[in-house]
Amino acid sequence: MDMMLKAIVEDIASAIGQEQDRGAVATYIPGLASVDPMQFGMAVVTADGEMVTGGDAAIPFSIQSISKVFALTLALGKVGDQLWERVGREPSGNAFNSIVQLEAEQGVPRNPFINAGAIVVADVNLGGHQPREAIGEMLRFVRYLADDESIAIDEAIARGEEETGFRNIALANYMRAFGNIKHPVELVLGCYFHQCAIAMSCIQLARAGRYLMHDGTHPEHGRVVSPARARRINALMLTCGHYDASGDFAFQVGIPGKSGVGGGILAVVPGRASIAVWSPGLNASGNSKLGTQALQMLAEATGWSVFRANS
Amino acid sequence: MDMMLKAIVEDIASAIGQEQDRGAVATYIPGLASVDPMQFGMAVVTADGEMVTGGDAAIPFSIQSISKVFALTLALGKVGDQLWERVGREPSGNAFNSIVQLEAEQGVPRNPFINAGAIVVADVNLGGHQPREAIGEMLRFVRYLADDESIAIDEAIARGEEETGFRNIALANYMRAFGNIKHPVELVLGCYFHQCAIAMSCIQLARAGRYLMHDGTHPEHGRVVSPARARRINALMLTCGHYDASGDFAFQVGIPGKSGVGGGILAVVPGRASIAVWSPGLNASGNSKLGTQALQMLAEATGWSVFRANS
Amino acid sequence: MDMMLKAIVEDIASAIGQEQDRGAVATYIPGLASVDPMQFGMAVVTADGEMVTGGDAAIPFSIQSISKVFALTLALGKVGDQLWERVGREPSGNAFNSIVQLEAEQGVPRNPFINAGAIVVADVNLGGHQPREAIGEMLRFVRYLADDESIAIDEAIARGEEETGFRNIALANYMRAFGNIKHPVELVLGCYFHQCAIAMSCIQLARAGRYLMHDGTHPEHGRVVSPARARRINALMLTCGHYDASGDFAFQVGIPGKSGVGGGILAVVPGRASIAVWSPGLNASGNSKLGTQALQMLAEATGWSVFRANS
Amino acid sequence: MDMMLKAIVEDIASAIGQEQDRGAVATYIPGLASVDPMQFGMAVVTADGEMVTGGDAAIPFSIQSISKVFALTLALGKVGDQLWERVGREPSGNAFNSIVQLEAEQGVPRNPFINAGAIVVADVNLGGHQPREAIGEMLRFVRYLADDESIAIDEAIARGEEETGFRNIALANYMRAFGNIKHPVELVLGCYFHQCAIAMSCIQLARAGRYLMHDGTHPEHGRVVSPARARRINALMLTCGHYDASGDFAFQVGIPGKSGVGGGILAVVPGRASIAVWSPGLNASGNSKLGTQALQMLAEATGWSVFRANS
Repeated sequence: MDMMLKAIVEDIASAIGQEQDRGAVATYIPGLASVDPMQFGMAVVTADGEMVTGGDAAIPFSIQSISKVFALTLALGKVGDQLWERVGREPSGNAFNSIVQLEAEQGVPRNPFINAGAIVVADVNLGGHQPREAIGEMLRFVRYLADDESIAIDEAIARGEEETGFRNIALANYMRAFGNIKHPVELVLGCYFHQCAIAMSCIQLARAGRYLMHDGTHPEHGRVVSPARARRINALMLTCGHYDASGDFAFQVGIPGKSGVGGGILAVVPGRASIAVWSPGLNASGNSKLGTQALQMLAEATGWSVFRANS
Repeated sequence: MDMMLKAIVEDIASAIGQEQDRGAVATYIPGLASVDPMQFGMAVVTADGEMVTGGDAAIPFSIQSISKVFALTLALGKVGDQLWERVGREPSGNAFNSIVQLEAEQGVPRNPFINAGAIVVADVNLGGHQPREAIGEMLRFVRYLADDESIAIDEAIARGEEETGFRNIALANYMRAFGNIKHPVELVLGCYFHQCAIAMSCIQLARAGRYLMHDGTHPEHGRVVSPARARRINALMLTCGHYDASGDFAFQVGIPGKSGVGGGILAVVPGRASIAVWSPGLNASGNSKLGTQALQMLAEATGWSVFRANS
Repeated sequence: MDMMLKAIVEDIASAIGQEQDRGAVATYIPGLASVDPMQFGMAVVTADGEMVTGGDAAIPFSIQSISKVFALTLALGKVGDQLWERVGREPSGNAFNSIVQLEAEQGVPRNPFINAGAIVVADVNLGGHQPREAIGEMLRFVRYLADDESIAIDEAIARGEEETGFRNIALANYMRAFGNIKHPVELVLGCYFHQCAIAMSCIQLARAGRYLMHDGTHPEHGRVVSPARARRINALMLTCGHYDASGDFAFQVGIPGKSGVGGGILAVVPGRASIAVWSPGLNASGNSKLGTQALQMLAEATGWSVFRANS
Repeated sequence: MDMMLKAIVEDIASAIGQEQDRGAVATYIPGLASVDPMQFGMAVVTADGEMVTGGDAAIPFSIQSISKVFALTLALGKVGDQLWERVGREPSGNAFNSIVQLEAEQGVPRNPFINAGAIVVADVNLGGHQPREAIGEMLRFVRYLADDESIAIDEAIARGEEETGFRNIALANYMRAFGNIKHPVELVLGCYFHQCAIAMSCIQLARAGRYLMHDGTHPEHGRVVSPARARRINALMLTCGHYDASGDFAFQVGIPGKSGVGGGILAVVPGRASIAVWSPGLNASGNSKLGTQALQMLAEATGWSVFRANS
């Protein structure tokens, strides 16, 4: 299988390399706008621990919203299912509706993977500490998951977010008006912007996702979350992981995944693989255009899908 | 396993029998309002074809929105992926938003499992024929899937829907204003209301769902849809099958399913089982209260979940 | 004054005649689409009963939504302030929101001058009678107000509305689902479409509006509505008479008015004048482009404005 | 007339004094929550400059949103009609929709009398200066209009707003994300919160509104704004001055007015009177309950209405 997987990944990397239409790189902060759109990386860790890579799999990029998966895992460890009193578990409809729903639903965001929900999660993770400590804890957690102490935060990206994040400031204050943000907004957003600015390579990211493929157990460090919680995080990734294209990703690819505006996607095939892809150009829904395409090719070539009988 | 499954199903039926709070039976038409809320049925067909049942598994009930799964399968057979030009594949956010989105998205409903989307599917299935013929084709298809010629339409329910279905008439006309309904609205709704009024027992329903457990192949009649299409229908059931509680069902149960306001739920574990449960009382989201609970118990007892490593 | 007014109206008609950009004629039914966009008419009846006209003031056009003023007057005569339990008195925000609000506000439309509200008014005016009788009563009322028995309904327009009015059918059924439409939808809409299809010239329309300039008293027939009710109808015209450009019309022109998609506008300066203008081309808000411009010129030249000290 | 007006005002003050149901005082900041709800004041300045008062007409209260009228006047003086590129002139539908519309309309608020619009106006009035200077200018302008140097800002109220104004911070940041707020949000809101915290008595407020009754001319200092601009500010007060009850106020009272959450209302009868009423208890729409009632009684007793022929 691994030789076959290696061939598949190489084929994908080669096919993606031919693509002309790569989507548009996010431009709202300089640190993202300046990324070379021609890059593409892919890393697959299989259930038995083998790592297969293709393209620029070792180049770090800004994981952005992918960090929401790790932040959610941390927050569930801190407050357990009480979290769900402050964040929902439903897809958000479209971007346009999210703020309507925030009003209609009294400051409770629809799920932890939209910005509003992730800001509540950051508020939980802050937990009365200084932002510096909370950010440090998050970074240590990601390093622990990936077994890699070299993972770091890109401070220029974090600063860029802080300088331009007016919508996120708006969302946070809006929820604070409903009492669903407990700490001062600037501290919460400080954590949130730093967590988004974690830089990881596909190799590091695929390694960090292994616990979700193994029912919550890290292959070296043991239990991270319970099997039920791992399944539920996977479920949220499937229903809410790709903004307003989550349904389409489930339909086309059939694998739980979480995308980030830096062009990365973490995808998890329970019992089979933890996958990271990266291509900076985004499609109209804000997900990596070629990353999505690569995952679709991979799913077709390997037969991986949570909706398949003989997978 | 089958002995174990039998014990599990019996335990569930017994536990459900003790429940006092059964939710509220739908009351908008007499044919639904008069159903005895104390009934509960469950039927599980496993991959090797064994049938395990519990409770009132042989009593027919109105499948209502569960029919949308079969209607979608038929429509995809007729027009293939062109269907997706007229219906989306995204969860709809909440009920409240659906009509906003219909306006914002120019008469294209978000997915085929909300009413607006199912009405477009009915328009496709009508395909220039008389309603009588289209309804007959749908009924024959369901009988074929379930291998049971005794399945019938409850005409009193169909009439009740027609007399009170003002919202559906509104939706259909609204989409017709955008050109996304091609036939006269009353003919399309005639088909739609009749398909919703098909009466099936849990046993019949579980049998009808077998093709979705077997990658699109009916165990006796052979291919119904391609494996890719079966996966995609399962994906849609997971992301959109329970109205605005779809995310929660995926989170709690982790199995593709489609509910109906008659209190039935069809659930599919790819490669493992086709399941039907029925309890007429509904929860606040309009899904069977005890049916949902029974499926959650079943998923926990069997370990069935598309998000689990060792399933 | 009258010589001066005559000069003003002539100047306006002449200036409007030079305009090249006339907006777009409504095209959703043939009877409106075929109207010559180069036409322009204006008629002003002053408080002392003099009639000053300009351009095509004697050519009948489809009054469309202007009929909502007369229908409201009739309905208030039938059920009095009970009407306001079924229709609101607030501007509707924008077109886009109206159906959201209909849902949020449980089938109660925001005001009687949006389509949904006018359909409720038509339901009131139907009042258990046959559509033929209700339509006859409406026509007789308009003839009475204008003192002109020659006013008639354009049946081709009425039929065109019925064949294409899917949105209105949607709105009516939607409200019926909330119980706010009492008669069968097709009968109510039959009345509504016929009332919209009344054809009147500017001269007839300006005459029909006289009771609103005289605190509810018709100059020849006496009291039509109480002074308080006349003021309130004027208030509704000011706040809600131009769809989602009502605020702008109040801001720019400062006179209560009601526009129709046929290109007509009825405007009332309390104690001063009843004015009708007509130019078939519409602006982006669906109001007569040159009609609005003509009223703005008239208001500036005469100083007429309800917001002015020395008017 | 003045003796009659004096009798009318006394009757109203006396009748209002009997009212038991006074609405609910705003409680979101201590400075408002602690106001005695039993207070009621009224002041009417007629066109010839006479002042008639009733009740607690000399007690200062927090003018809150009434300040938006004066701020708008200032901003129009600074940038003229360019202001309308950044703020609309339409009623906002209901509160619920305002943030939807802000998104749908790309950060351009519907009118200058909703919070979002007034924050843009504050941004214009800040105009590159320090908040201290802008606040000073606003205060000097209000003193100038009222001819009263004793008018001051209630700093405790201003601080209270700053500490709890999360929704306004959200709105401001949201608009900044669209580029429609130019200065740092905290500076703009500093000005906005201070302008809302101006304390005035009914007497002072009625005096400050005189220029709007006289087509833009202050009786002592001369021209404040052009006649056209005065009419337009009056028009905006009528269509947008009472939040989502503006239509109802126009319908019931028929006079341009602007309310504030402190329980005050400024009302203007062009050519007749500038009126201020104050009663701290609010109705469900956030407008002074008894203040609205007093204005309705005054309008009925005097016949004042912009929609009346013989006014």
